[in-house]
Amino acid sequence: MKFQAPKGTRDFYPPQMAWRNYLEDAWRRVSVRNGFEEVEGPIFEPLDLYKVKSGEAIVNELFHFEDRGERELAIRPEFTPTLARMIAAQANALPRPIKWFSIPNLCRAERPQRGRLREFLQWNCDIVGTDSPVADAECIFTAVDLLAELKLRPDQVKVRISHRQAVQRILSDSGVSEDQMPAAFELIDRREKIPPEEFATGLTKLGLEPDGLGEFTTSFQQRYNAGFTEKKSVDPDWETYCPSWGHEVLEPLDRQIVNFGIADWCEYDLGIVRGLAYYTGIVFEIHETTGALRALAGGGRYDKLIELFGGPPMPAVGFGMGDVVLTEVLSDKGLIPPDLRPGPDVFIIGATEQGAQHITGVAALLRRAGLHARFSYKTTRNLSKLLREAADAGARFAVILDDRTTSSSTGAVAIKDLQTKDGQQADVALAWNSNGHSLVRHLQNKLRQDLNQQGG
Amino acid sequence: MKFQAPKGTRDFYPPQMAWRNYLEDAWRRVSVRNGFEEVEGPIFEPLDLYKVKSGEAIVNELFHFEDRGERELAIRPEFTPTLARMIAAQANALPRPIKWFSIPNLCRAERPQRGRLREFLQWNCDIVGTDSPVADAECIFTAVDLLAELKLRPDQVKVRISHRQAVQRILSDSGVSEDQMPAAFELIDRREKIPPEEFATGLTKLGLEPDGLGEFTTSFQQRYNAGFTEKKSVDPDWETYCPSWGHEVLEPLDRQIVNFGIADWCEYDLGIVRGLAYYTGIVFEIHETTGALRALAGGGRYDKLIELFGGPPMPAVGFGMGDVVLTEVLSDKGLIPPDLRPGPDVFIIGATEQGAQHITGVAALLRRAGLHARFSYKTTRNLSKLLREAADAGARFAVILDDRTTSSSTGAVAIKDLQTKDGQQADVALAWNSNGHSLVRHLQNKLRQDLNQQGG
Repeated sequence: MKFQAPKGTRDFYPPQMAWRNYLEDAWRRVSVRNGFEEVEGPIFEPLDLYKVKSGEAIVNELFHFEDRGERELAIRPEFTPTLARMIAAQANALPRPIKWFSIPNLCRAERPQRGRLREFLQWNCDIVGTDSPVADAECIFTAVDLLAELKLRPDQVKVRISHRQAVQRILSDSGVSEDQMPAAFELIDRREKIPPEEFATGLTKLGLEPDGLGEFTTSFQQRYNAGFTEKKSVDPDWETYCPSWGHEVLEPLDRQIVNFGIADWCEYDLGIVRGLAYYTGIVFEIHETTGALRALAGGGRYDKLIELFGGPPMPAVGFGMGDVVLTEVLSDKGLIPPDLRPGPDVFIIGATEQGAQHITGVAALLRRAGLHARFSYKTTRNLSKLLREAADAGARFAVILDDRTTSSSTGAVAIKDLQTKDGQQADVALAWNSNGHSLVRHLQNKLRQDLNQQGG
Repeated sequence: MKFQAPKGTRDFYPPQMAWRNYLEDAWRRVSVRNGFEEVEGPIFEPLDLYKVKSGEAIVNELFHFEDRGERELAIRPEFTPTLARMIAAQANALPRPIKWFSIPNLCRAERPQRGRLREFLQWNCDIVGTDSPVADAECIFTAVDLLAELKLRPDQVKVRISHRQAVQRILSDSGVSEDQMPAAFELIDRREKIPPEEFATGLTKLGLEPDGLGEFTTSFQQRYNAGFTEKKSVDPDWETYCPSWGHEVLEPLDRQIVNFGIADWCEYDLGIVRGLAYYTGIVFEIHETTGALRALAGGGRYDKLIELFGGPPMPAVGFGMGDVVLTEVLSDKGLIPPDLRPGPDVFIIGATEQGAQHITGVAALLRRAGLHARFSYKTTRNLSKLLREAADAGARFAVILDDRTTSSSTGAVAIKDLQTKDGQQADVALAWNSNGHSLVRHLQNKLRQDLNQQGG
């Protein structure tokens, strides 16, 4: 009987897990230095939690079930409803602004395809309790800080920024009525995913000429670089290629993007609307510049959501970045380090039967002192075979136990440096003195020297 | 509309999450130094995967559902079936022994009670591909290494060790037939959870006298300390209180436990059988010595399981340790550090309007250099209020920006040490030189001094 991982899910063997941990560590490190604190929630939530935010249609995209008390539950497809629920429950006790990040695994019952799996990881950062454009820009900065941390460059990935109110104003100027607005947003969001005829039909349904979006279609296709506040002041021709409607809503954000020093990572693109109806202000997506893949990340301002989940009115902005597309982009660019699995500090070798009696005792001593120590499970005492096993494991040092190795105060072991060509070897006493255990001290000093050399 | 976390699940706000990360870090650190490599699998698996291992009855304890392709799936209640599936799929490609650890979240559809939730974390360590008692003892050592890492002592928690074959031999000597054996194991496993009458009825059903388990009931209640191999050689009375049947199966393990130096953490208790039918050799549980709580951890040898999942015959030993009981024990003993949330390295203060223009720029500079930097979202320029906010955040240094702070090469900031009583203050240039940015270098040097002082 052979089983496979369910469709659209992944097994993380040690090499894949090492990459996953590398990525999670980077997400966590960047979040913390940007002042976010980590949170987590349950893997499943009441099904209604998702219906409230996204409507009845979401149910088909969820893995849902009933518990024995006939409560309807669903595996989380996103983290925002959990975040909103947690904030609504404690709104008055939490100092503001609330800056939270999380790294949940999420599940969606959709057809697996490139860049889209049924289970994936998503890094979320949210700032709740301030409507300042500083918070908008700080979310974008945090995402960019992560991209730079993973050695991506601004010519390889771009943050494409838009604003719900700007898009709405243009649509409204083109004759789209208030109640057609959601359908219009959805149509624009899907534009690059559907055939031109379908887009044209959609426009007709909205009461617009198939080729008649006029200023809008031109405008939302027009991408101009961030930093326009600065450009405007030095460029007399600015007004001719930067439509005036964009300034009012985007200028406060633009100024902060310049202050954060990330204008070269950002561009404006009013074709970005994000499918989710709950955004109220800026929206953004991060794309690889060749545009071949789905978005690496997406987010925006959602000032009404906490209230929807029973909390007080609280402005909020945030974004999510999945692991699947990000890993594909990094892999394409050759930015996945080749060997992320840590080798042991020490590999312990029993070169004689008497020496071998002490392998596990020495391993215990070193491990308890915090050293990563391994040994062979083979019964061979052949030194060169065992040294090869140590080298294959990527060990920094071999500790060789032989007939001189006893538990008395005169016991000794040999330490062999496996990363110098001459394989330098030294004898060390196997005994306790006033500074602790001599073998432990000796190895700790050696490893500290390595660290200082790397750091300096 | 207010929502709550589903019954038996937890919300991890920043303080709870900081503890969870502290625990996960300890699990990960101890695993790695003991030579285990991390793996992960999907949050849900085919329902059959659990039926194969545990029978049809397991279905009631699972959260299960169908996907749109009518595949029966279940949220994982344990990690071992995933591990066995992954090993069976790659058995020939993996170097042996396979030493894997994982920290999955698991879900069980049971009634929440003290020490038992519907969603919890479990640390798993397994050694697959060797039947050596060294591997048995190494699993126990790794668990003990974790307990010691969290500052528990051998008088507070004990590993209670038993052996399936020893228990089986005693039951068989008492007249229990081969096909009654599983029921007998289950009865013994539940002994401390059921009333004495129910236990007596169970014995009758097995064809044993209610008070007639004779040697067995006495034996399995008798707990003697690990290290009996050594004691036996020096203690002439040993045979009188250590029943002979235990020696044959337990002595090889006992010798390794002594070698690993953990005899004081271990005791033998043949009342430990573990409910799960798949164990084939040693079994163990870790209990708080007062016995008030459920087991902290449990494991044992399961030599037939990889085959059951379609792999080659491969001996295996491992254990799981949940976060719920462990956290309760550590909390009872006062071993949960009070504040685990890291304060920022730097809090940036805009003391004048002109200085405030540069807050986000300086934040960006410091964060990109790896420093944890925060600032106030308030618009006040009141220095003492802002210094209070910095201190409340637990910041190490305040960086104060004022009218002297410009982006030109003569710009400067003041740095205030928030952890010395006199609040030492120094001016630093805000400019690039051949060593990088002067402010970054200054702060990095200061923080390195802190680290060296802590380390030395």
